[in-house]
Amino acid sequence: MANNPLIGAPVSAIPTPAPIVDLDRLEGNLRRMASYFAARPCKLRPHFKSHKCVELARRQLAAGGCSGTTCAKLSEAEQLVAGGVTDILIANQVVGSDKARRLAVLNHKATVRSAVDSVHNARELSAAASNNNTTIPVLVEVDVGMKRCGVPPGEPALALAQEIMRLPGLRFDGLQGYEGHLVALPDRDERASKTREALAPLIETRRLIERAGIPVAIVSSGGTGTYDITGNIEGVNEVQCGSYALMDGAYARIRPEFVVARWILATVISARDGWAVVDVGTKGLGCEFGLPTIEGRPDAKARYTAEEHTPFDGLAAQVGDKLRIIPSHGCTTQNLYRQMWIARGDTIVDVWPIEGAGCLE
Amino acid sequence: MANNPLIGAPVSAIPTPAPIVDLDRLEGNLRRMASYFAARPCKLRPHFKSHKCVELARRQLAAGGCSGTTCAKLSEAEQLVAGGVTDILIANQVVGSDKARRLAVLNHKATVRSAVDSVHNARELSAAASNNNTTIPVLVEVDVGMKRCGVPPGEPALALAQEIMRLPGLRFDGLQGYEGHLVALPDRDERASKTREALAPLIETRRLIERAGIPVAIVSSGGTGTYDITGNIEGVNEVQCGSYALMDGAYARIRPEFVVARWILATVISARDGWAVVDVGTKGLGCEFGLPTIEGRPDAKARYTAEEHTPFDGLAAQVGDKLRIIPSHGCTTQNLYRQMWIARGDTIVDVWPIEGAGCLE
Repeated sequence: MANNPLIGAPVSAIPTPAPIVDLDRLEGNLRRMASYFAARPCKLRPHFKSHKCVELARRQLAAGGCSGTTCAKLSEAEQLVAGGVTDILIANQVVGSDKARRLAVLNHKATVRSAVDSVHNARELSAAASNNNTTIPVLVEVDVGMKRCGVPPGEPALALAQEIMRLPGLRFDGLQGYEGHLVALPDRDERASKTREALAPLIETRRLIERAGIPVAIVSSGGTGTYDITGNIEGVNEVQCGSYALMDGAYARIRPEFVVARWILATVISARDGWAVVDVGTKGLGCEFGLPTIEGRPDAKARYTAEEHTPFDGLAAQVGDKLRIIPSHGCTTQNLYRQMWIARGDTIVDVWPIEGAGCLE
Repeated sequence: MANNPLIGAPVSAIPTPAPIVDLDRLEGNLRRMASYFAARPCKLRPHFKSHKCVELARRQLAAGGCSGTTCAKLSEAEQLVAGGVTDILIANQVVGSDKARRLAVLNHKATVRSAVDSVHNARELSAAASNNNTTIPVLVEVDVGMKRCGVPPGEPALALAQEIMRLPGLRFDGLQGYEGHLVALPDRDERASKTREALAPLIETRRLIERAGIPVAIVSSGGTGTYDITGNIEGVNEVQCGSYALMDGAYARIRPEFVVARWILATVISARDGWAVVDVGTKGLGCEFGLPTIEGRPDAKARYTAEEHTPFDGLAAQVGDKLRIIPSHGCTTQNLYRQMWIARGDTIVDVWPIEGAGCLE
């Protein structure tokens, strides 16, 4: 995209609303997380779902400290493989015979693991791998207290691992357990103690399976909120951090060592005494973790978000002003755009596609 | 897209998550709303933002009772014009010299009105129209109590109309006032009385401007929640309904005369005693108006939505089951997908692009 006519333009020339990435800040975040894991036996497996941009995924790997890439769904894995990424974990179940076939085919080109939590699904993947003359590597997902997907720790996980060992076309690579109900706890000490408590049964399950004679190559867990907790638990091999790269309003509160590196550039389209309205709302901002804020304007308070509007009280601004909006949730924000503009200081230097956006199956 | 290999397949063959439209239901909704307005002086101006699909916009016009099409932003208007729609209202301000130029250029091919609420913006549009040898028709937006965009009713609206009359390249076409803070009030009588109260100053403003010798061709207002209230207020010419076509969980509660015609098809990826998890969450469902429900499964209660998961308590289901999820908010749901599958009964008969998705500026 180096021939885009806006390359070289100032950030303010970008039509709004649009995501703008500060490349210096992004590179700083990548270096910081990479150096943390480079010095440890536990590795980083950066999560694609948080930015959905293949170029950024490649830069996370190039920064070092990584065992591979994590993603949330089959279409994301297909995009990563098309972009040259060769070691992938789909941190969810891939269900249905057609998707099982696509996953099998993908394993001709790269190592693409899937999480599994049912015998039904394991058999489906086994059949697809056999029919396509390949092997699908899988992790058994263990529920560590989030009560979403996963088998209970202990015997149920062992039983599923043993079933996987018996099925042709599958390779048992280990375990996944995600403490998603804990990663955003604001108090660091509480987050640390509850995470260690939640993951203890996962480590116990690892030992149980190993005692049964089945090697456990990978135990994958964690996220940006717990990387320095989960990453220090013996028996956890890799941590699935995503939000550290671009950050957002929610993680800025609990992870001050990383900086917000992506804003939604917006234009003031209406201004009156006491408030102003920008041209982005719930169709351009992930708002599940709270209302957006404005970079450098701490006194401006969002009143609500409508589909294409956010009115800010306490914002002295003129119609036409461009502002940098910080969404509370970066992952769902990225899902709303097709590309993001890359800036060095105030100059646009590149535009990167967001391949994973648009809720592909 | 008629050569898509899934045309003719059963709905259950569609990879999930994906929007599925029941064409019989959609056509019924279009007929019902069209016949309401066909019999009245006030016309329907269906809102593109609710579905963002040009094919559906064309079908709304073909159903009758319409004065034109409404959309929320310039990129949507560009998509509509590219699809052959010739009379459009952008129900928002189009701000910035580059967007003003695009709007002017668009008016070479179609009639594309914009809402205006500041002299700054009016002058910007005037300059762009003059520079591009065209006329931009505008409506003055009046704040009818939503406290978002718009000038106050009365003298401020008249002053802006007079300024527009003086500016070259602009045509004053009338007024817009949207009672967005009232359209979802659950009690019908309260909704009706508050809507009439809110729009009275808009009608007064119309008369004030007409008394000043300026013709007011259009007064545009309302939505699906108030179509049979706003559409009967003397002095309102057109109503901007969008959600009636596909409907959603929120409007189903207050507009039982229209039926839900779009679901997100989802797959059960994990099932345990007492709950099951489907493969769609906040990245595939607009959730601002509440948690999703499941067609035909009233006992299943969503516990929360995560990015790619919704766990339902009280859902007896097997891994692999396909379910029809009803999002609470259809407009933001459509924004998350690139296409929707069209079904007659259980057979896929077409696939329509969702051109407006992906938060284009």
